[in-house]
Amino acid sequence: MATSTDDASPRDRLLDAAMELFYRDGVSLGVEALCRAAGVSKRSMYQLFGGKDDVLAASLERRMPAYGQRFGLGTQGPRAPREQILYVFEQLEQASTEEGYRGCPFLSALVELKDPAHPASVVALRAKAALTGAFREQAERGGAHDPDLLARQLTLVFDGASARAGAGAETLQGLTTSTATALLDAAGVT
Amino acid sequence: MATSTDDASPRDRLLDAAMELFYRDGVSLGVEALCRAAGVSKRSMYQLFGGKDDVLAASLERRMPAYGQRFGLGTQGPRAPREQILYVFEQLEQASTEEGYRGCPFLSALVELKDPAHPASVVALRAKAALTGAFREQAERGGAHDPDLLARQLTLVFDGASARAGAGAETLQGLTTSTATALLDAAGVT
Repeated sequence: MATSTDDASPRDRLLDAAMELFYRDGVSLGVEALCRAAGVSKRSMYQLFGGKDDVLAASLERRMPAYGQRFGLGTQGPRAPREQILYVFEQLEQASTEEGYRGCPFLSALVELKDPAHPASVVALRAKAALTGAFREQAERGGAHDPDLLARQLTLVFDGASARAGAGAETLQGLTTSTATALLDAAGVT
Repeated sequence: MATSTDDASPRDRLLDAAMELFYRDGVSLGVEALCRAAGVSKRSMYQLFGGKDDVLAASLERRMPAYGQRFGLGTQGPRAPREQILYVFEQLEQASTEEGYRGCPFLSALVELKDPAHPASVVALRAKAALTGAFREQAERGGAHDPDLLARQLTLVFDGASARAGAGAETLQGLTTSTATALLDAAGVT
């Protein structure tokens, strides 16, 4: 079930299992089930991490680079600002069609934990702030009237779309890109 | 803790406790804690409902009328379509500042349950479809170019905003109304 190989370290096996199971089943998953899936004893888990909360936080932390890469965050690529922003939503629409999609893992963790001070919430809030920051950077480069406002608006759309698609309440094809387009137009990013 | 009085029926006490605790702590809350808070034996709970899943579904169902009323859904009030739509977002911004706000209870349940076929998800999807339907009705009355699209866009904003505010990732004042305004303008609803 876990994506790591048998010769991966207990730490890696725990983080891989955590990333997969917490995303699929929610953060209320028990320590027993986590350790069983990882093939790691509870004793080892508590030696490697302070407890389940820290495993969850570390597994979200580990997910950040691939997530940023998927959405082209932090890259100063060849795309114009408007195209760079629309690219994020094209990628989101694509991701939402993939088997096992359950929405943005960081937003889901925040919604489920209901505690901004939880160690995993702190990581998730950082990941979400990075997305808004990337939107803001492109909004500024693109000459938006109010880059801050546009970045926050785009994040609302991103999070609403990922939550709704992940929950089976919406299909995103063409929806988020059209919404982002209207907001970019209103903000003067051409 | 529960909002019902001591002479409320066991059924009402269970539903009130469920509404409050599942919203505050998440749907993974155990049967023991639920029954303890409601002052109802587990035996009575299982006699009244099939189980925890059905209590959760019934508690969401019970929440729908007050929710619809708060956002002015289903009322053909004196407001013009554009104002009626903006009113929903004004109410959302207001609600998000209230003590104990954790986002839209229906979206949270969907995100947490991760199963559109769960009896509580079925209720939650119905509640969310009612919101989109109300947006669609006003969009049509307001002469939107594409009422369906506008209604889905507005729902993305609503759900993204409620999730982000509920998780402590955003403060909504003026944010959702400005976003809705841009989308209304783009859709030709003046």
